[in-house]
Amino acid sequence: MAQSRRQWLRSSIGMSGLLLTPSSLLTLEEKERFIPRPLDEIVRLSSNENPYGPSKKVQEAVIQAFDHACRYPYDYSDALAEKLALKHGVAPESIIITGGSTEGLKLTGLTFAHDGGEIISAAPTFLAMMDYAKQWGATIQWVPVNASKGYDLEEVEKRVNASTKLVFLCNPNNPTGTLIEKQKLVDFCETVSQKAIVFSDEAYYDFIEDADYPSMDQLVREGKDVIVSKTFSKVYGLAGTRIGYLIAKPSIAAMIRKNLVAMSNVLAIAAAEEALKDDEFYAFSLKKTKEAKNKIYEVLDYLDLDYVPSHTNFVFFHSLRDIRELGEQMLAEGVRIGRPFPPFYDWCRISTGTDEEIDRFVQGMLKLYRG
Amino acid sequence: MAQSRRQWLRSSIGMSGLLLTPSSLLTLEEKERFIPRPLDEIVRLSSNENPYGPSKKVQEAVIQAFDHACRYPYDYSDALAEKLALKHGVAPESIIITGGSTEGLKLTGLTFAHDGGEIISAAPTFLAMMDYAKQWGATIQWVPVNASKGYDLEEVEKRVNASTKLVFLCNPNNPTGTLIEKQKLVDFCETVSQKAIVFSDEAYYDFIEDADYPSMDQLVREGKDVIVSKTFSKVYGLAGTRIGYLIAKPSIAAMIRKNLVAMSNVLAIAAAEEALKDDEFYAFSLKKTKEAKNKIYEVLDYLDLDYVPSHTNFVFFHSLRDIRELGEQMLAEGVRIGRPFPPFYDWCRISTGTDEEIDRFVQGMLKLYRG
Repeated sequence: MAQSRRQWLRSSIGMSGLLLTPSSLLTLEEKERFIPRPLDEIVRLSSNENPYGPSKKVQEAVIQAFDHACRYPYDYSDALAEKLALKHGVAPESIIITGGSTEGLKLTGLTFAHDGGEIISAAPTFLAMMDYAKQWGATIQWVPVNASKGYDLEEVEKRVNASTKLVFLCNPNNPTGTLIEKQKLVDFCETVSQKAIVFSDEAYYDFIEDADYPSMDQLVREGKDVIVSKTFSKVYGLAGTRIGYLIAKPSIAAMIRKNLVAMSNVLAIAAAEEALKDDEFYAFSLKKTKEAKNKIYEVLDYLDLDYVPSHTNFVFFHSLRDIRELGEQMLAEGVRIGRPFPPFYDWCRISTGTDEEIDRFVQGMLKLYRG
Repeated sequence: MAQSRRQWLRSSIGMSGLLLTPSSLLTLEEKERFIPRPLDEIVRLSSNENPYGPSKKVQEAVIQAFDHACRYPYDYSDALAEKLALKHGVAPESIIITGGSTEGLKLTGLTFAHDGGEIISAAPTFLAMMDYAKQWGATIQWVPVNASKGYDLEEVEKRVNASTKLVFLCNPNNPTGTLIEKQKLVDFCETVSQKAIVFSDEAYYDFIEDADYPSMDQLVREGKDVIVSKTFSKVYGLAGTRIGYLIAKPSIAAMIRKNLVAMSNVLAIAAAEEALKDDEFYAFSLKKTKEAKNKIYEVLDYLDLDYVPSHTNFVFFHSLRDIRELGEQMLAEGVRIGRPFPPFYDWCRISTGTDEEIDRFVQGMLKLYRG
């Protein structure tokens, strides 16, 4: 952000201005429709959840599914896979419904990299796959993010070797919020997937504002060795229900599918089916996420703290103090912030939340940094 | 069943008598309270589900949990683990909440028997653990059930050797419905757990009518190398929500816990917490299961087909015709029966269901065997 805007903010809005606007951003009709939660004693801005979910329509769909909650989920799961196959233009055998995308990430790591297989990953990033695969004998090649906290694709590509089983991309990246330039991403995936499986974790894909930004499902359609993971935990606000899925060509999908241990559940499947149709809630979630990010940017600008422009539902900012210390200080102010992401011990990941939750964060920051 | 009762049944009740009673078994108040489902075109008597679940109280608890469905489940899961720890008299670290007991079975097999470990198991039994462990390099020693289709514990014990990592007991056993004599079970577990981990799958434990029959959680409390698995899929009627748990001493539990990939979900956790308190539904489920089993016994007696007296919510009977053929024939009559359980290709596992569902089964059987 330009220095002039920073100065303008500090002089013209100030502390009270930062706190005046947010609660008014939700219209009465929106409040009614999207039922924001009562404010908790400690607001959770630590796990990139979406506090507006599940939508009322989704809740209604879950209630309708109660009659099926005594049944094992396989048939329901297959029906959802068919819908997702249509959405992504792939065969139903290319869809693997999982218990959150976590099950997909962990079991992909286990399937391809156990007993000495190698995974190349950025650092920091979302660790589920690498941590799990390590437990089963995988080796991880960590490639530090570049100066902009984004992927160093050249270095990743350079490291690919005969032992490489998986190349893990989290794009947009958690916890840095960065997005790979789209043509670079496509070129990278096309080239590297000839040597190893490229895994594209697209948990935050929905928050990308470039309408033309491609999902790597297009490379799955082309038969490449690419696996895409998706989740209903973020924009759909269904983290607690545990449902996500993988998209991969049938031969790869079959290798992962036989290693599943949990899969999803009847209520989450009903929720996901409805969520896919609930365009209004989807648009609302994106709008509120953007508003919350802008509010976070404002206070960071006001406090002159650097941050990475985010393509996700969280912001990674330079806290200038140890994140473990800041974590405790913010907890005392009623806000749970993101965990430490080594090696960036003086950076903080703050998730978006409701207007009131972000107010709480703003208040805490103002107190701790200007108090 | 004595031949005289069989003859009495055939002469005095006959086909119509068998069909007259069942629908009247549910009182109007019970119908209201426990909302039996509308009858499906094909009734599922194939997966040992409980068609009366989830109870109304549990449904209400799930609705109350909607506000938390946007949150990751860890805190909720920990709170349930504490309640279950109290129930079983163990430390909270001894409880592992899983995505149905299946996740627990599969990951226990992976954890202890991968890469050449050996599991000793009865045959036939519930296969989740063994099938999964085999995929990861385990060897399975299959011990055929005895003439009564129950566990041959002497033979199982004889097979234990230096490579044995797990001894799997499903007790009562799926698909045969048999129960190990209680003192034999305790003695076996005490002795064998000194040489290998004994895994006691107690999915059907609630259906045991002997009020003094012990859960093997007592050996966990004594610090033995015993793992117990429990599920909310059966008596609680929550199969679709995917929640179960393991009970093991903390050192064993820690080894499994780090290998989890999915765990359960916020809605299932809320359902489970309420289900544990809903004694009325629990008692109702047991009552209806017993009624359904009696009805199944009656038609089998009438048709002079042998069966194994069941300690579960299903009956294993001698169909005298190939189960794959019978499966198709019964499907044409609107009933899905259990899958084949080799080597017993002329035996059938039929799950209990609502009165109307069992009526459908009775009708189908009468048509196929006396039509």
